[in-house]
This record gives sequence, C-alpha cells and structure tokens, in this order.
Amino acid sequence: MKALQEKILKEGKVLPGNVLKVSHFLNHQLDVDFLMEMGKEIAARFEGAGVNKILTIEASGIALAVATAAHMHVPVLFAKKSASSNMSSGKLVTQVASYTHHKVYNVVVSSDLLTEKDRVLIIDDFLACGNAVVGLIDLVHQAHAEVVGVSAAIEKGYQGGGDKLREENIRVESLAIIEELSEQGIRFRN
Amino acid sequence: MKALQEKILKEGKVLPGNVLKVSHFLNHQLDVDFLMEMGKEIAARFEGAGVNKILTIEASGIALAVATAAHMHVPVLFAKKSASSNMSSGKLVTQVASYTHHKVYNVVVSSDLLTEKDRVLIIDDFLACGNAVVGLIDLVHQAHAEVVGVSAAIEKGYQGGGDKLREENIRVESLAIIEELSEQGIRFRN
Repeated sequence: MKALQEKILKEGKVLPGNVLKVSHFLNHQLDVDFLMEMGKEIAARFEGAGVNKILTIEASGIALAVATAAHMHVPVLFAKKSASSNMSSGKLVTQVASYTHHKVYNVVVSSDLLTEKDRVLIIDDFLACGNAVVGLIDLVHQAHAEVVGVSAAIEKGYQGGGDKLREENIRVESLAIIEELSEQGIRFRN
Repeated sequence: MKALQEKILKEGKVLPGNVLKVSHFLNHQLDVDFLMEMGKEIAARFEGAGVNKILTIEASGIALAVATAAHMHVPVLFAKKSASSNMSSGKLVTQVASYTHHKVYNVVVSSDLLTEKDRVLIIDDFLACGNAVVGLIDLVHQAHAEVVGVSAAIEKGYQGGGDKLREENIRVESLAIIEELSEQGIRFRN
C-alpha cells in the first residue's frame, strides 16, 4: 500500500537499535481516518475469501482489526494477555513471547467465541518474528477453525516471521514490508 | 441509546456477583457494525463541541474510541498500562486501581501526543467506579489540555463513578446507564 509506505517514510522515526517508531499514528496515537483506509485495503484483498471472523490480540491490534471489520461486516475477537475474572466459561490458551517486552505471556480466548464454524482472518499492527501470529494460529487450530489468512499493517521482512508463514502456505498480506531498516533509511520490498 | 439497552437485555448475561457479561459484543468479541453505530451516536452528541482528540485506555476502550473517531475524524490516543520500551520521549503517568483485576497499575501516555492544544473526549467501554476515567482526566490536566467530556457505552449507575463526575460539572454521556443489576433483571435509568 503506497500510502502507508509514504506515511512511514514521512512520519516514522528510526530509533537507536533500529526500532521503527510509528507511535503517533499506528500504535499509541491512531490516525483513524488513515486506519480506516488501511482496513478498507485489507477488506478488499480478502474479498470473497469467506472470512466470517477477525482475530487479533490486545492492545494495538484492535484498532486495525476494527477498521477492517467495519468494511467486512464481521465480528472481531481479540485475544487477551491475561485471563480476566469475568471469563468464566472455557478458555483456549497459548503462549507468546514478546519481543518488545522480553517476556512470555498467556494469550487467551473464550472457547465459546472461537469455534469450528469460524473462517478467521488474523490481524495485527506489526508482523516481525511472528510470535503473536503463531500463537493466534494455534488458538484457531485448537478451536478446529480455519485460518483464511494473516494481515498486518507493517511487516518487518528482515525478521522473517511473515516469510516463514508463507512457506507454510499461509496467505500473508502486509500493507508495507520493510526489507531494511537503519538510521540511514528504510527500504521496502516491492 | 435504546438499541444498546435492548442488546444488553437480549444478549447480556448477569453472572454470580452481579457481574454483567457482554464479552460477546463489547469487550472480548466486538460486534463491529453495532460498535460503529455507537460511535456515530457519541459523535452526534459531541458535534460542535470542538473535540480534536479522543483519549482512551487499553485494551477494551480502543474499539469504541476508534468507532467514534471514524465519525468525528479526529485521532485517538490510547493510554498504556505499562511503559513500552519504545516510548523513549517524555511520559505523563498516573495510577489507576482496577476493579476487575484487583491491582493498581501505571497508566502512561507519551507527553508529545497530549498537549495544551488538545480538546479531549475521553472514551471507555464501561464507566463504573470511574477510576480509569479519573486517571485519564489527570493525564489531560497534566498536559494542560481540556476535558470536553466523557463517554462510555455502559455506565453502571449504581457504582456512582458517572454521577461523581457530573457533580464536578464534567459532561458525561453514557449510551446506557444501568441503575440496578441482579440475576433477577436489569433496570436502566431513563
């Protein structure tokens, strides 16, 4: 998505340690008009694929998932990082290692909200090593549901998570794939 | 909002301990088409009030905030429950006690994303004791920004948080206010 590449180049910052900071439009402050455009693009790419549920993970995946669902007219289910005391019925649980926070946490969905009837599009803001997505795919498989595909706003191609999924014949649609990132510049995959 | 009252009566469940479970449409799975309707209603109530930013708190406030912002065409800023390692610049911090999780946690926003220019609408899914909202108001005041109002999908009127804010002349617009909740039934404020 050309507009996202341009926005990253214009507004993103590369911090020391080659961390891409897009917190003023994607994962802390949200440019909602732009988010809705990204959601529209994802919905268009998966049109006709029979998606009937979007699965994401709290917190920063929720916004893009909602923006996409608003165009696809399907519900969003967001996996939680700790079991809430209100989640009284059965749970599906998986473990995810967080690259940013350097810890492993439980990721949970209520088992009555993800079932074998679901054809699932998995959405997250970033796709890097792919740990979160692999965890979400595990939840979908536990529920005997089907993974239709995976979509992220920004894929860090050099961290390999997206390509590993593609090798497993999972459809991955990232709106911008960064091949190289340094304080000298950003190069996108064509 | 009549449609929300009807949805709560039809689809909500009251769990032991008088906990209202709406996790299949509001705070775990999201009925996004309905969420967009709620966002439209909030946007209409605050039309002309000069809101230029929506502030919410991760995770379950994000969806309603995005749905509202999609109609108001303003950015959403979501406060984080722990400082991410990517948040390198200045921070505004407050403390919030969680009723559901029985703990106190830091709530943080990047100080360059909330400034004295902002006229802020605070949004959350639930308004109960009001602890989260009071924390968000504190962040707005720390930034020397202005609180235009507060909006929640569901206010638990019997927990008093909303009325306490109204007594302080803060405009509070809840889409459904529950006056009484028990396993025998739900009564709304007119």
